[in-house]
Amino acid sequence: MKIGLIRVLTLEDEKLLNLHGRLIERAFPELKVVTRCIEDQPKGIYDDKTEEIAKPKILKLVKEFEKEGVNAIIISCAADPAVEEAREVVSVPVIGAGSAVSALALAYGTGIGVLNLTEETPKVIKRILGKNLIAEDHPEGVRNTLDLMTEWGKREVIKAAKRLKRRGAEVIVLGCTGLSTIRIAPVLEEAVGIPVLDPVIASGAVTLYALRRRVLDEG
Amino acid sequence: MKIGLIRVLTLEDEKLLNLHGRLIERAFPELKVVTRCIEDQPKGIYDDKTEEIAKPKILKLVKEFEKEGVNAIIISCAADPAVEEAREVVSVPVIGAGSAVSALALAYGTGIGVLNLTEETPKVIKRILGKNLIAEDHPEGVRNTLDLMTEWGKREVIKAAKRLKRRGAEVIVLGCTGLSTIRIAPVLEEAVGIPVLDPVIASGAVTLYALRRRVLDEG
Repeated sequence: MKIGLIRVLTLEDEKLLNLHGRLIERAFPELKVVTRCIEDQPKGIYDDKTEEIAKPKILKLVKEFEKEGVNAIIISCAADPAVEEAREVVSVPVIGAGSAVSALALAYGTGIGVLNLTEETPKVIKRILGKNLIAEDHPEGVRNTLDLMTEWGKREVIKAAKRLKRRGAEVIVLGCTGLSTIRIAPVLEEAVGIPVLDPVIASGAVTLYALRRRVLDEG
Repeated sequence: MKIGLIRVLTLEDEKLLNLHGRLIERAFPELKVVTRCIEDQPKGIYDDKTEEIAKPKILKLVKEFEKEGVNAIIISCAADPAVEEAREVVSVPVIGAGSAVSALALAYGTGIGVLNLTEETPKVIKRILGKNLIAEDHPEGVRNTLDLMTEWGKREVIKAAKRLKRRGAEVIVLGCTGLSTIRIAPVLEEAVGIPVLDPVIASGAVTLYALRRRVLDEG
Protein backbone atom coordinates (compact mmCIF):
# COMPACT_ATOMS: atom_id res chain seq x y z
CA MET A 1 0.00 0.00 0.00
CA LYS A 2 1.44 3.33 -1.11
CA ILE A 3 1.41 6.23 1.31
CA GLY A 4 2.18 9.87 0.55
CA LEU A 5 3.97 11.66 3.39
CA ILE A 6 4.32 15.42 3.60
CA ARG A 7 7.16 17.13 5.47
CA VAL A 8 6.18 20.67 6.40
CA LEU A 9 9.66 22.13 6.03
CA THR A 10 11.89 22.40 3.00
CA LEU A 11 14.60 19.73 3.04
CA GLU A 12 17.25 19.47 0.33
CA ASP A 13 18.99 16.40 1.78
CA GLU A 14 17.26 13.28 0.40
CA LYS A 15 18.13 11.17 3.43
CA LEU A 16 16.77 13.71 5.90
CA LEU A 17 13.71 14.21 3.69
CA ASN A 18 12.94 10.49 3.71
CA LEU A 19 13.74 9.83 7.36
CA HIS A 20 10.17 9.89 8.73
CA GLY A 21 9.03 7.64 5.91
CA ARG A 22 11.82 5.16 6.67
CA LEU A 23 10.84 5.08 10.36
CA ILE A 24 7.28 4.21 9.39
CA GLU A 25 8.43 1.53 6.94
CA ARG A 26 10.66 -0.06 9.57
CA ALA A 27 7.76 -0.29 12.04
CA PHE A 28 5.14 -1.14 9.42
CA PRO A 29 6.72 -2.84 6.40
CA GLU A 30 3.16 -3.18 5.03
CA LEU A 31 3.37 0.51 4.06
CA LYS A 32 5.50 1.97 1.27
CA VAL A 33 6.07 5.67 1.88
CA VAL A 34 6.80 8.36 -0.72
CA THR A 35 7.85 11.69 0.80
CA ARG A 36 7.55 15.27 -0.47
CA CYS A 37 8.17 18.56 1.31
CA ILE A 38 6.73 22.04 0.99
CA GLU A 39 8.72 24.71 -0.87
CA ASP A 40 10.54 27.79 0.42
CA GLN A 41 10.16 27.14 4.15
CA PRO A 42 13.54 25.84 5.36
CA LYS A 43 12.57 26.74 8.94
CA GLY A 44 9.23 24.97 8.65
CA ILE A 45 6.24 25.91 10.79
CA TYR A 46 6.92 27.63 14.10
CA ASP A 47 3.98 30.01 14.66
CA ASP A 48 0.47 30.81 13.35
CA LYS A 49 1.79 32.94 10.50
CA THR A 50 4.17 30.29 9.12
CA GLU A 51 1.36 27.73 9.47
CA GLU A 52 -0.95 29.88 7.33
CA ILE A 53 1.79 30.32 4.71
CA ALA A 54 2.36 26.56 4.65
CA LYS A 55 -1.28 25.48 4.36
CA PRO A 56 -1.86 26.08 0.61
CA LYS A 57 1.48 24.40 -0.13
CA ILE A 58 0.45 21.37 1.91
CA LEU A 59 -2.92 21.20 0.15
CA LYS A 60 -1.21 21.35 -3.24
CA LEU A 61 0.92 18.31 -2.32
CA VAL A 62 -2.14 16.52 -0.90
CA LYS A 63 -3.97 16.90 -4.23
CA GLU A 64 -0.90 15.77 -6.20
CA PHE A 65 -0.58 12.66 -4.05
CA GLU A 66 -4.24 11.77 -4.54
CA LYS A 67 -3.92 12.23 -8.30
CA GLU A 68 -0.95 9.83 -8.26
CA GLY A 69 -3.06 7.17 -6.57
CA VAL A 70 -1.70 6.94 -3.04
CA ASN A 71 -3.91 5.00 -0.59
CA ALA A 72 -3.50 7.48 2.28
CA ILE A 73 -1.69 10.71 3.12
CA ILE A 74 0.30 11.51 6.27
CA ILE A 75 1.04 15.09 7.30
CA SER A 76 4.14 14.53 9.38
CA CYS A 77 3.88 17.37 11.89
CA ALA A 78 2.52 17.29 15.45
CA ALA A 79 0.52 20.47 14.86
CA ASP A 80 -1.62 18.74 12.17
CA PRO A 81 -1.30 21.70 9.77
CA ALA A 82 -4.00 21.66 7.07
CA VAL A 83 -5.21 18.20 8.09
CA GLU A 84 -8.86 19.24 8.41
CA GLU A 85 -8.73 21.22 5.17
CA ALA A 86 -7.07 18.30 3.37
CA ARG A 87 -9.89 15.97 4.41
CA GLU A 88 -12.29 18.31 2.61
CA VAL A 89 -10.41 18.20 -0.69
CA VAL A 90 -9.42 14.54 -1.10
CA SER A 91 -11.23 11.27 -0.54
CA VAL A 92 -8.31 9.14 0.71
CA PRO A 93 -7.64 9.06 4.47
CA VAL A 94 -5.54 12.00 5.73
CA ILE A 95 -3.62 11.33 8.95
CA GLY A 96 -1.95 13.99 11.07
CA ALA A 97 0.97 13.01 13.31
CA GLY A 98 -0.30 15.14 16.21
CA SER A 99 -3.82 13.74 16.25
CA ALA A 100 -2.50 10.21 15.69
CA VAL A 101 -0.13 10.22 18.65
CA SER A 102 -2.46 11.94 21.08
CA ALA A 103 -5.32 9.65 20.07
CA LEU A 104 -3.22 6.50 20.52
CA ALA A 105 -1.97 7.73 23.90
CA LEU A 106 -5.55 7.53 25.15
CA ALA A 107 -5.59 3.81 24.40
CA TYR A 108 -2.67 3.48 26.85
CA GLY A 109 -3.99 5.41 29.81
CA THR A 110 -5.69 8.61 30.83
CA GLY A 111 -2.90 10.51 32.56
CA ILE A 112 -1.04 11.92 29.58
CA GLY A 113 2.07 14.09 29.68
CA VAL A 114 3.23 16.00 26.62
CA LEU A 115 6.92 16.56 26.02
CA ASN A 116 7.53 19.44 23.64
CA LEU A 117 10.73 20.59 22.02
CA THR A 118 10.53 24.29 22.84
CA GLU A 119 7.16 25.67 21.87
CA GLU A 120 3.72 25.25 23.35
CA THR A 121 1.76 22.01 23.14
CA PRO A 122 0.10 21.96 19.68
CA LYS A 123 -3.58 22.96 19.80
CA VAL A 124 -4.74 19.74 18.17
CA ILE A 125 -3.05 17.68 20.90
CA LYS A 126 -4.67 19.80 23.62
CA ARG A 127 -8.07 19.47 22.00
CA ILE A 128 -7.82 15.69 21.67
CA LEU A 129 -6.43 15.03 25.13
CA GLY A 130 -8.77 17.47 26.91
CA LYS A 131 -8.79 16.72 30.64
CA ASN A 132 -6.60 13.67 30.10
CA LEU A 133 -3.67 16.05 29.50
CA ILE A 134 -2.20 16.36 32.97
CA ALA A 135 1.25 17.85 32.39
CA GLU A 136 3.31 19.62 29.72
CA ASP A 137 7.05 20.19 29.78
CA HIS A 138 10.13 20.75 27.61
CA PRO A 139 13.90 20.46 27.97
CA GLU A 140 15.42 23.59 29.52
CA GLY A 141 17.64 25.70 27.28
CA VAL A 142 17.00 23.59 24.19
CA ARG A 143 16.24 25.63 21.07
CA ASN A 144 16.16 22.97 18.36
CA THR A 145 16.76 19.28 17.59
CA LEU A 146 20.51 19.91 17.09
CA ASP A 147 20.76 20.93 20.76
CA LEU A 148 19.12 17.60 21.67
CA MET A 149 21.89 15.70 19.96
CA THR A 150 24.46 17.09 22.43
CA GLU A 151 25.12 15.42 25.78
CA TRP A 152 23.65 18.31 27.80
CA GLY A 153 20.60 18.45 25.52
CA LYS A 154 19.98 14.75 26.04
CA ARG A 155 20.30 15.18 29.82
CA GLU A 156 17.76 18.03 29.75
CA VAL A 157 15.19 16.09 27.72
CA ILE A 158 15.49 13.11 30.07
CA LYS A 159 15.01 15.48 33.03
CA ALA A 160 11.87 16.89 31.39
CA ALA A 161 10.47 13.38 30.84
CA LYS A 162 11.16 12.49 34.48
CA ARG A 163 9.34 15.65 35.61
CA LEU A 164 6.29 14.58 33.58
CA LYS A 165 6.32 11.18 35.25
CA ARG A 166 6.65 12.74 38.72
CA ARG A 167 3.63 14.92 37.94
CA GLY A 168 1.60 11.76 37.36
CA ALA A 169 1.93 10.99 33.65
CA GLU A 170 1.29 7.32 32.83
CA VAL A 171 2.16 7.88 29.17
CA ILE A 172 4.28 10.54 27.44
CA VAL A 173 3.40 11.97 24.04
CA LEU A 174 6.18 13.63 22.05
CA GLY A 175 4.71 16.94 20.89
CA CYS A 176 7.06 17.59 17.97
CA THR A 177 8.15 15.38 15.06
CA GLY A 178 11.64 16.88 15.45
CA LEU A 179 11.82 14.49 18.41
CA SER A 180 11.02 11.65 16.00
CA THR A 181 13.84 12.67 13.68
CA ILE A 182 16.39 12.11 16.46
CA ARG A 183 14.69 8.87 17.64
CA ILE A 184 14.50 9.98 21.25
CA ALA A 185 11.43 7.91 22.24
CA PRO A 186 13.28 4.64 23.08
CA VAL A 187 15.96 6.58 25.00
CA LEU A 188 13.33 8.31 27.12
CA GLU A 189 11.28 5.16 27.60
CA GLU A 190 14.37 3.37 28.89
CA ALA A 191 15.16 6.30 31.21
CA VAL A 192 11.68 6.86 32.69
CA GLY A 193 10.01 3.44 32.45
CA ILE A 194 6.66 4.51 31.01
CA PRO A 195 5.51 4.40 27.37
CA VAL A 196 6.83 7.31 25.29
CA LEU A 197 4.88 7.64 22.08
CA ASP A 198 6.42 8.92 18.87
CA PRO A 199 4.16 10.96 16.55
CA VAL A 200 5.63 9.62 13.31
CA ILE A 201 5.30 5.95 14.31
CA ALA A 202 1.78 6.69 15.60
CA SER A 203 0.81 8.15 12.24
CA GLY A 204 1.94 4.90 10.60
CA ALA A 205 -0.25 2.85 12.93
CA VAL A 206 -3.33 4.99 12.32
CA THR A 207 -2.71 4.82 8.57
CA LEU A 208 -2.55 1.04 8.62
CA TYR A 209 -5.78 0.99 10.64
CA ALA A 210 -7.50 3.33 8.19
CA LEU A 211 -6.54 1.08 5.27
CA ARG A 212 -7.13 -2.31 6.86
CA ARG A 213 -10.54 -1.57 8.31
CA ARG A 214 -11.63 -0.66 4.75
CA VAL A 215 -10.14 -3.79 3.24
CA LEU A 216 -12.17 -5.82 5.72
CA ASP A 217 -15.39 -3.93 4.92
CA GLU A 218 -14.97 -4.72 1.25
CA GLY A 219 -14.16 -8.39 1.87
CA MET B 1 2.71 -12.55 17.16
CA LYS B 2 0.37 -14.32 19.53
CA ILE B 3 -2.45 -12.38 21.13
CA GLY B 4 -4.69 -13.50 23.98
CA LEU B 5 -8.26 -12.24 23.63
CA ILE B 6 -10.78 -12.32 26.47
CA ARG B 7 -14.52 -12.44 25.89
CA VAL B 8 -16.38 -11.19 28.94
CA LEU B 9 -19.31 -13.51 28.58
CA THR B 10 -19.52 -17.29 28.74
CA LEU B 11 -19.79 -18.79 25.25
CA GLU B 12 -20.08 -22.55 24.65
CA ASP B 13 -20.15 -22.31 20.86
CA GLU B 14 -16.54 -22.39 19.59
CA LYS B 15 -17.34 -20.42 16.46
CA LEU B 16 -19.08 -17.65 18.38
CA LEU B 17 -16.30 -17.67 20.97
CA ASN B 18 -13.63 -17.17 18.31
CA LEU B 19 -15.54 -14.66 16.19
CA HIS B 20 -13.88 -11.46 17.49
CA GLY B 21 -10.46 -13.07 17.13
CA ARG B 22 -11.24 -14.04 13.53
CA LEU B 23 -12.31 -10.46 12.72
CA ILE B 24 -8.98 -9.17 14.03
CA GLU B 25 -7.02 -11.80 12.10
CA ARG B 26 -8.83 -10.93 8.89
CA ALA B 27 -7.97 -7.24 9.26
CA PHE B 28 -4.48 -7.84 10.69
CA PRO B 29 -3.10 -11.20 9.53
CA GLU B 30 0.10 -10.25 11.41
CA LEU B 31 -1.73 -11.21 14.63
CA LYS B 32 -2.64 -14.74 15.71
CA VAL B 33 -5.46 -14.62 18.25
CA VAL B 34 -6.24 -17.19 20.94
CA THR B 35 -9.59 -16.62 22.67
CA ARG B 36 -10.88 -17.50 26.15
CA CYS B 37 -14.05 -16.46 27.94
CA ILE B 38 -14.94 -15.92 31.58
CA GLU B 39 -16.92 -18.61 33.40
CA ASP B 40 -20.52 -18.66 34.62
CA GLN B 41 -21.67 -15.39 33.04
CA PRO B 42 -23.74 -16.36 29.98
CA LYS B 43 -25.32 -12.90 30.00
CA GLY B 44 -21.97 -11.16 30.25
CA ILE B 45 -21.55 -7.69 31.74
CA TYR B 46 -24.59 -5.43 31.73
CA ASP B 47 -24.28 -3.29 34.88
CA ASP B 48 -21.82 -2.32 37.64
CA LYS B 49 -22.56 -5.43 39.67
CA THR B 50 -21.94 -7.90 36.85
CA GLU B 51 -18.77 -5.96 36.00
CA GLU B 52 -17.48 -6.39 39.56
CA ILE B 53 -18.27 -10.11 39.46
CA ALA B 54 -16.44 -10.45 36.14
CA LYS B 55 -13.28 -8.57 37.10
CA PRO B 56 -11.45 -11.29 39.09
CA LYS B 57 -12.33 -13.82 36.37
CA ILE B 58 -10.85 -11.52 33.73
CA LEU B 59 -7.70 -10.99 35.79
CA LYS B 60 -7.31 -14.74 36.19
CA LEU B 61 -7.36 -15.21 32.41
CA VAL B 62 -5.00 -12.25 31.95
CA LYS B 63 -2.41 -13.89 34.22
CA GLU B 64 -2.86 -17.26 32.47
CA PHE B 65 -2.28 -15.66 29.08
CA GLU B 66 0.88 -13.93 30.26
CA LYS B 67 2.20 -17.18 31.71
CA GLU B 68 1.60 -18.84 28.33
CA GLY B 69 3.75 -16.22 26.64
CA VAL B 70 1.29 -14.12 24.62
CA ASN B 71 2.70 -10.82 23.30
CA ALA B 72 -0.38 -8.76 24.17
CA ILE B 73 -3.85 -9.17 25.66
CA ILE B 74 -7.13 -7.76 24.34
CA ILE B 75 -10.19 -7.41 26.56
CA SER B 76 -12.90 -7.50 23.94
CA CYS B 77 -15.57 -5.34 25.56
CA ALA B 78 -16.33 -1.66 24.97
CA ALA B 79 -16.58 -1.01 28.73
CA ASP B 80 -12.89 -1.94 29.21
CA PRO B 81 -13.66 -4.11 32.26
CA ALA B 82 -10.56 -4.75 34.41
CA VAL B 83 -8.25 -3.17 31.82
CA GLU B 84 -6.60 -0.80 34.31
CA GLU B 85 -6.27 -3.54 36.94
CA ALA B 86 -4.82 -5.94 34.36
CA ARG B 87 -2.12 -3.42 33.45
CA GLU B 88 -1.01 -3.51 37.10
CA VAL B 89 -0.63 -7.30 37.19
CA VAL B 90 1.04 -8.16 33.87
CA SER B 91 3.87 -6.62 31.88
CA VAL B 92 2.57 -7.27 28.35
CA PRO B 93 0.38 -4.59 26.73
CA VAL B 94 -3.31 -4.83 27.70
CA ILE B 95 -5.71 -3.30 25.19
CA GLY B 96 -9.38 -2.58 25.84
CA ALA B 97 -11.81 -2.44 22.93
CA GLY B 98 -13.58 0.63 24.33
CA SER B 99 -10.47 2.73 24.86
CA ALA B 100 -9.03 1.54 21.54
CA VAL B 101 -12.02 2.58 19.43
CA SER B 102 -12.64 5.91 21.16
CA ALA B 103 -8.93 6.76 20.99
CA LEU B 104 -8.71 5.95 17.26
CA ALA B 105 -11.87 7.96 16.56
CA LEU B 106 -9.99 11.07 17.71
CA ALA B 107 -7.44 10.52 14.95
CA TYR B 108 -10.35 10.82 12.48
CA GLY B 109 -12.02 13.98 13.71
CA THR B 110 -13.23 15.76 16.79
CA GLY B 111 -17.00 15.52 16.43
CA ILE B 112 -17.62 12.00 17.66
CA GLY B 113 -20.98 10.26 17.91
CA VAL B 114 -21.39 7.06 19.92
CA LEU B 115 -23.87 4.43 18.80
CA ASN B 116 -24.80 2.10 21.64
CA LEU B 117 -26.81 -1.10 21.57
CA THR B 118 -29.21 -0.35 24.40
CA GLU B 119 -27.33 0.77 27.46
CA GLU B 120 -25.53 4.01 28.30
CA THR B 121 -22.25 4.99 26.67
CA PRO B 122 -19.48 3.15 28.56
CA LYS B 123 -17.68 5.38 31.08
CA VAL B 124 -14.27 4.76 29.55
CA ILE B 125 -15.50 6.01 26.17
CA LYS B 126 -16.97 9.14 27.77
CA ARG B 127 -13.75 9.81 29.66
CA ILE B 128 -11.56 9.45 26.58
CA LEU B 129 -13.76 11.46 24.24
CA GLY B 130 -14.45 14.25 26.74
CA LYS B 131 -15.81 17.31 24.94
CA ASN B 132 -15.23 15.63 21.59
CA LEU B 133 -18.25 13.41 22.32
CA ILE B 134 -21.05 15.39 20.72
CA ALA B 135 -23.92 12.88 20.47
CA GLU B 136 -25.02 9.50 21.79
CA ASP B 137 -27.85 7.36 20.46
CA HIS B 138 -29.17 3.80 20.16
CA PRO B 139 -31.66 1.91 17.99
CA GLU B 140 -35.22 2.26 19.29
CA GLY B 141 -36.84 -0.88 20.68
CA VAL B 142 -33.72 -3.01 20.31
CA ARG B 143 -32.89 -5.13 23.36
CA ASN B 144 -29.99 -7.25 22.11
CA THR B 145 -27.90 -8.19 19.08
CA LEU B 146 -30.50 -10.76 17.96
CA ASP B 147 -33.00 -7.94 17.46
CA LEU B 148 -30.44 -6.21 15.23
CA MET B 149 -30.35 -9.19 12.94
CA THR B 150 -34.01 -8.69 12.01
CA GLU B 151 -35.09 -6.33 9.24
CA TRP B 152 -36.75 -3.87 11.65
CA GLY B 153 -33.73 -3.95 13.95
CA LYS B 154 -31.43 -3.11 11.08
CA ARG B 155 -33.72 -0.25 10.03
CA GLU B 156 -33.64 1.16 13.57
CA VAL B 157 -29.87 1.03 13.90
CA ILE B 158 -29.46 2.80 10.55
CA LYS B 159 -31.91 5.45 11.74
CA ALA B 160 -29.89 5.94 14.94
CA ALA B 161 -26.67 6.34 12.93
CA LYS B 162 -28.36 8.91 10.69
CA ARG B 163 -29.52 10.85 13.75
CA LEU B 164 -25.92 10.97 15.00
CA LYS B 165 -24.75 12.37 11.68
CA ARG B 166 -27.53 14.98 11.65
CA ARG B 167 -26.44 16.07 15.12
CA GLY B 168 -22.98 16.82 13.73
CA ALA B 169 -21.00 13.61 14.17
CA GLU B 170 -18.07 13.36 11.74
CA VAL B 171 -17.20 9.87 12.99
CA ILE B 172 -19.30 7.19 14.69
CA VAL B 173 -17.94 4.91 17.41
CA LEU B 174 -19.78 1.66 18.08
CA GLY B 175 -20.18 1.53 21.86
CA CYS B 176 -20.69 -2.23 22.22
CA THR B 177 -18.76 -5.21 20.85
CA GLY B 178 -22.11 -6.92 20.28
CA LEU B 179 -22.25 -4.59 17.28
CA SER B 180 -18.92 -6.05 16.13
CA THR B 181 -20.30 -9.59 16.37
CA ILE B 182 -22.96 -8.81 13.79
CA ARG B 183 -20.52 -6.81 11.56
CA ILE B 184 -22.77 -3.78 11.38
CA ALA B 185 -20.01 -1.14 10.84
CA PRO B 186 -19.75 -1.49 7.03
CA VAL B 187 -23.55 -1.52 6.69
CA LEU B 188 -23.83 1.72 8.67
CA GLU B 189 -20.89 3.34 6.93
CA GLU B 190 -22.51 2.62 3.57
CA ALA B 191 -25.84 4.02 4.81
CA VAL B 192 -24.58 7.23 6.44
CA GLY B 193 -21.37 8.04 4.54
CA ILE B 194 -19.09 8.81 7.49
CA PRO B 195 -16.52 6.51 9.14
CA VAL B 196 -18.10 3.99 11.55
CA LEU B 197 -15.45 2.51 13.80
CA ASP B 198 -15.69 -1.01 15.17
CA PRO B 199 -14.27 -1.62 18.68
CA VAL B 200 -12.91 -5.10 17.94
CA ILE B 201 -11.05 -4.04 14.79
CA ALA B 202 -9.78 -0.96 16.64
CA SER B 203 -8.37 -3.14 19.41
CA GLY B 204 -6.45 -5.11 16.78
CA ALA B 205 -4.94 -1.90 15.36
CA VAL B 206 -3.85 -0.65 18.77
CA THR B 207 -2.38 -4.06 19.58
CA LEU B 208 -0.31 -4.06 16.40
CA TYR B 209 0.87 -0.55 17.24
CA ALA B 210 1.83 -1.57 20.79
CA LEU B 211 3.91 -4.47 19.45
CA ARG B 212 5.48 -2.80 16.45
CA ARG B 213 6.60 0.36 18.20
CA ARG B 214 8.49 -1.91 20.64
CA VAL B 215 10.06 -3.98 17.86
CA LEU B 216 11.36 -0.76 16.37
CA ASP B 217 12.78 0.45 19.69
CA GLU B 218 14.69 -2.79 20.07
CA GLY B 219 16.02 -2.77 16.50
